[in-house]
Amino acid sequence: MSTKNACSDLEDLFNPESLALIGASTKPNKWGYIILSNIITCGYKGKLYPINPNHNRILGLHTYPNIDSAPDEIDVAMVATPISTVPEVIKECGEKGVRFAIVISAGFSEAGEEGERAELEMMQTARKAGVRIVGPNTMGVFGAKASMSALMPMVLPSRGGISFISQSGNIGTQLLGLGEKMGIGFSKFVSSGNEADIRCEEYLEYFGNDPETKAVLIYMEGLDDGKKFLDVAKDVTKKKPVVVFKAGKTASGSRAAKSHSGSLAGSREIYNAAFKQSGITEVSTSTEMLYIANAFVHLPLPRGDRTGIISWGGGWGVVATDACEAAGLKIPNLPEDVVRELSTYLPPYWSKNNPVDLVGTLNMNSHRKCLEALVKCESIDGVICLGIIFDSHASTTNPTVGQTGTGVDTPIITKTMERLERQATSKVVNKVMERLKRKMVSKIIRLTNEYNKPIIAVTVSYDDALNTKLLKEGIVAYNTPEKGANTMHKLFEYKRYLSNQEQDFGK
Amino acid sequence: MSTKNACSDLEDLFNPESLALIGASTKPNKWGYIILSNIITCGYKGKLYPINPNHNRILGLHTYPNIDSAPDEIDVAMVATPISTVPEVIKECGEKGVRFAIVISAGFSEAGEEGERAELEMMQTARKAGVRIVGPNTMGVFGAKASMSALMPMVLPSRGGISFISQSGNIGTQLLGLGEKMGIGFSKFVSSGNEADIRCEEYLEYFGNDPETKAVLIYMEGLDDGKKFLDVAKDVTKKKPVVVFKAGKTASGSRAAKSHSGSLAGSREIYNAAFKQSGITEVSTSTEMLYIANAFVHLPLPRGDRTGIISWGGGWGVVATDACEAAGLKIPNLPEDVVRELSTYLPPYWSKNNPVDLVGTLNMNSHRKCLEALVKCESIDGVICLGIIFDSHASTTNPTVGQTGTGVDTPIITKTMERLERQATSKVVNKVMERLKRKMVSKIIRLTNEYNKPIIAVTVSYDDALNTKLLKEGIVAYNTPEKGANTMHKLFEYKRYLSNQEQDFGK
Repeated sequence: MSTKNACSDLEDLFNPESLALIGASTKPNKWGYIILSNIITCGYKGKLYPINPNHNRILGLHTYPNIDSAPDEIDVAMVATPISTVPEVIKECGEKGVRFAIVISAGFSEAGEEGERAELEMMQTARKAGVRIVGPNTMGVFGAKASMSALMPMVLPSRGGISFISQSGNIGTQLLGLGEKMGIGFSKFVSSGNEADIRCEEYLEYFGNDPETKAVLIYMEGLDDGKKFLDVAKDVTKKKPVVVFKAGKTASGSRAAKSHSGSLAGSREIYNAAFKQSGITEVSTSTEMLYIANAFVHLPLPRGDRTGIISWGGGWGVVATDACEAAGLKIPNLPEDVVRELSTYLPPYWSKNNPVDLVGTLNMNSHRKCLEALVKCESIDGVICLGIIFDSHASTTNPTVGQTGTGVDTPIITKTMERLERQATSKVVNKVMERLKRKMVSKIIRLTNEYNKPIIAVTVSYDDALNTKLLKEGIVAYNTPEKGANTMHKLFEYKRYLSNQEQDFGK
Repeated sequence: MSTKNACSDLEDLFNPESLALIGASTKPNKWGYIILSNIITCGYKGKLYPINPNHNRILGLHTYPNIDSAPDEIDVAMVATPISTVPEVIKECGEKGVRFAIVISAGFSEAGEEGERAELEMMQTARKAGVRIVGPNTMGVFGAKASMSALMPMVLPSRGGISFISQSGNIGTQLLGLGEKMGIGFSKFVSSGNEADIRCEEYLEYFGNDPETKAVLIYMEGLDDGKKFLDVAKDVTKKKPVVVFKAGKTASGSRAAKSHSGSLAGSREIYNAAFKQSGITEVSTSTEMLYIANAFVHLPLPRGDRTGIISWGGGWGVVATDACEAAGLKIPNLPEDVVRELSTYLPPYWSKNNPVDLVGTLNMNSHRKCLEALVKCESIDGVICLGIIFDSHASTTNPTVGQTGTGVDTPIITKTMERLERQATSKVVNKVMERLKRKMVSKIIRLTNEYNKPIIAVTVSYDDALNTKLLKEGIVAYNTPEKGANTMHKLFEYKRYLSNQEQDFGK
């Protein structure tokens, strides 16, 4: 069977019509209960069969004593039983014709020699039985199409274009959750666990061919077959971006990784060089994984590194310029005709250069015109705009309105009237702000499409919710210029890689 | 008057009993309206006088034609009138005995030669009139004690121990807003503008002596008198931490800074070295400003760089170890007796080393015991704990509960009953989780105080709100291990600086 495995299609794993949970439990502190609850809560679209010999119903679902007694075919079985029972369970899965087993159970190769033997035994059974294994020691799988959140933690990922392989279940599922808060969505996710059977590169290959996957994200601790992975990656990056976070790069980190997933982490330099050659986008912090992968899903690639910066206030312009230059981008001077055009929209004391300082003007019409002038400028490949999308709800949500000691003697009724008037004014202001925000969002989307250049917004936002909202509305928005600069540079690096590849090919 | 200025007390500026707004407006799109609305909304405790010759009432407040006609003494006047009127306004302020004028008006030295002349003229008037000037080109001042949010943007900062000087109003006020979202509070804030009169170092000196200020934060673009600033900083850092973000360090950034606030940015290396010698904690991103300053307010300093890591899942342990080592911290092996003690709380396959991998155990009692064992360990100076504080509300807030296509034919009523049952179970689970969270928070606070070592939490949080909540409850919590490692290292660096100073003193 193992020869067939290498080219198998993982479609049924991520989008199964039927799913069994072997080891379903009635006890809320057991994984067999929590996972079942998660699958139900997420609204899994297929047929769901809890398996437990001691109960007829769990969480309202008819429960079967063993997998054989389930009435239909089963595509995927999740296994949450004690380690000693796993080989037998896998054998039964094979007899039932189950194609994939997601083995939650831990204590295998990650836990020392005895566990290694158990893993070997399980794999022998699985190969004989024709069952492909996810894990063991996995936290589960998510598939957006089937609304399947077959995961240990209570997390309901947003839907989107990222498919994510994580060699740590804990990190993977937490990032799904963070993504949900940030407005960043996923197509598929797998916590690959010990990778006794299906390994990182096989998931990657599948995601490379999967039309729903717009960008691949990998949290990596170590590889069993580095060469194979890099070969696959080199193929995939021709089609779509692959973003990798490699953990265990320092000496202590490597030691910890070995103890965690049993993988040999390898030296930082070797990985960095190999990743670069394969067109992989490497990131170095956990949140970077999310926002960079997401930017690849939503933004066109810049043709070059010449970045335009437009900022409502000068300070963020300075910080953004620093951040861009530190990231390796260029902030070119603007052609005279662009300066002339911008001068017609701005007060005479504006910066006359890139970064374009809007010097705090409240005329949002000018903001939009200046942005367009910068985006269409031929010597600019991408634009970071700062502070030109405003939040609108700061004043209405505040409970202290009118509680001021003004020192003026006003009758209570007048005071109340005036407070209401102020609140009404706030509402009007907010409505205006909301309309202006929508106008700017439409403008950014239109300009992005028209000029095919990436536009990244950095919001003067007192609330992350604004960025989440903007991401959901289809524009990439951050609350720091550093993220904007870093994103633009990563987009540019990938574009440069692709261009070099094409040139090599042309020779 | 200018000789007196250098040693003046800024207490009345940040905590005035009376405040006038010259140029108050009835139009919601004018700063004279927005600022007044902000002051009212924040609940300013002192007496507030709008000044405008054309209206009797603005936003419900009696309005005076000029400052002279205001019935009381005025401590501080905000000036939001056109630049040409400012000298006259300042003169009137002097005649009224106003001590401080916050000059919002722009177009001064930041806008070229003509503006420079106007600034000079204003300053001559101010010196004659005995009025100290904030700005011009400032976005205002915040003082927690007086609940005074005399700021241009609608932002209501949280109260706390940080006092913040920003040479960009835009960046400063946005960070106040972000801080509010993150649970990070401020004692005082000033957007120092062009610093025509009161300069960065004077605010710093005052904050150094102010008992309500536990840490000073500075966003810096450039200095008129670098030596003076460093002398002051060296004094202040003996008493409390000073956190600085220096913008304009790259060539383009420096060019942008010059255009923005007219300041010469200077080279990166010179600033870095000078800051280090003065005990300044330098940060390099905008969010870092907030979370590092806040950590200084809340955490004791570690005696050394030996960091203990405890992680619910192995993956974050690996990432945290990498991050700590990359930041310059040590992850020492644990003494045998500590390993023995930890082994009594954990499954046999735990990592047996630092990082302590809790291997996903759900027994929170063990989590607390393991944490204490690590904190009290004599070869550990500070602890980063990951994933041992859980969120409790994921399952109740989900609208899709029960909307699963289970393929099982159950009557509607049974389904509804079972859905309610599941929701009730969720509520019970959440209540238990909330209690466990509170227990862990108390434990962390107790251990921090008992052993006087910093403990930083990294939450397995799908919601930033958890970290905000935890910060408000008094523990430092982040959603990435990188922030934890960076914080621990900055705390350690400051501690090392203080120790070296003491040794030098002892010689």
